[in-house]
Amino acid sequence: MMNVQSDDLFAPKFDGQGLLSAVVVDVTTRAVLMVAFMDAEALAETRRTGFAHFRSRSRGRLWKKGESSGHVLHVEKILVDCDQDALVLECRPDGPTCHTGAVSCFFRELDNDALRSVTT
Amino acid sequence: MMNVQSDDLFAPKFDGQGLLSAVVVDVTTRAVLMVAFMDAEALAETRRTGFAHFRSRSRGRLWKKGESSGHVLHVEKILVDCDQDALVLECRPDGPTCHTGAVSCFFRELDNDALRSVTT
Repeated sequence: MMNVQSDDLFAPKFDGQGLLSAVVVDVTTRAVLMVAFMDAEALAETRRTGFAHFRSRSRGRLWKKGESSGHVLHVEKILVDCDQDALVLECRPDGPTCHTGAVSCFFRELDNDALRSVTT
Repeated sequence: MMNVQSDDLFAPKFDGQGLLSAVVVDVTTRAVLMVAFMDAEALAETRRTGFAHFRSRSRGRLWKKGESSGHVLHVEKILVDCDQDALVLECRPDGPTCHTGAVSCFFRELDNDALRSVTT
């Protein structure tokens, strides 16, 4: 008989709204590309297809990243945090991740109360 | 007269629960260390003190990371995403970030339905 610690099994802890935090990182550059939320459906579709899917809180529906722009995210690896309520998706992006055309959504740095563009 | 685009000013967009997503990255290794939430108070305290503060959803209060363990996070830079509802905190950590003693809370990788430890 094999002992399996409960910690060794994936048991995602969705919050009161049924969501996990998901951080997308470029598997090559390590840059944080975007942050979004996943519900059980988005997580299942991501795992089934290998493309990052999220729950759009504003549109209230499943959202495949790049479904309109074509700038999809190929998920190479999923990291799980200690309490299983957040994921890091290590991805290979097809094109810029941000809808503005920037490589990363985090293209600005806080400088007092101003936002200054940074090279991504 | 100087034109200032509204996008050039920091105007964080808290969600319906008054929260922003905050991703902590090691400024040296670029590893994602943890993910948490900030309300206006946590953001203000982080900016005032230079130490990362969050809103603990489970404890329902302001939480200075490392307040009991001493493993604080020195915030070197704050990046802001395109729609200003998520932050990346580039930090210099004092000690391991995870309460388990791991360098990062993301010390496990999803492998089918199992969690496999990864080197951090």
